[in-house]
Amino acid sequence: MSYDNLIGIAAGVCTALSLLPQLIKMIKEKKATDISLRMLIVLLTGLCLWVWYGILKEDWPIILTNIASLVVNLLIIGFRWYYKHARH
Amino acid sequence: MSYDNLIGIAAGVCTALSLLPQLIKMIKEKKATDISLRMLIVLLTGLCLWVWYGILKEDWPIILTNIASLVVNLLIIGFRWYYKHARH
Repeated sequence: MSYDNLIGIAAGVCTALSLLPQLIKMIKEKKATDISLRMLIVLLTGLCLWVWYGILKEDWPIILTNIASLVVNLLIIGFRWYYKHARH
Repeated sequence: MSYDNLIGIAAGVCTALSLLPQLIKMIKEKKATDISLRMLIVLLTGLCLWVWYGILKEDWPIILTNIASLVVNLLIIGFRWYYKHARH
């Protein structure tokens, strides 16, 4: 793997990891995060656009790491919805 | 501006914007966010690496938008420190 790609992957792993604590906190506390849905949707849009940008540039580190972030973001949205609306 | 660059800038504006509510909330409530410093440092590292990656690839959308996110992240860390340690 080239040096460029290593830096890109390391960058993307860090930014994806930084989303994880929110997900973990929500699952542990079994209640919806107080992070607004609007912000999560803006982030979702941004991550989708980054994946699209990576495809346009044929840039694998961007594509792969933003897909990872997207998955975490979707899980946050999903669990947030579940804890807000599910009957306990 | 090329189509690629437009998508990259739009992507980066969304992901940078998604950090703003935390900063705004903290300033409004005048108290430190409950988001862990560890997570903020991981995000800081990731954003620095993205800027570096952008420089290696000579990719302006990546460089500019990640610098914007870095500024927001540093403000969050700074205000968090201020509200945690300042005498009121």
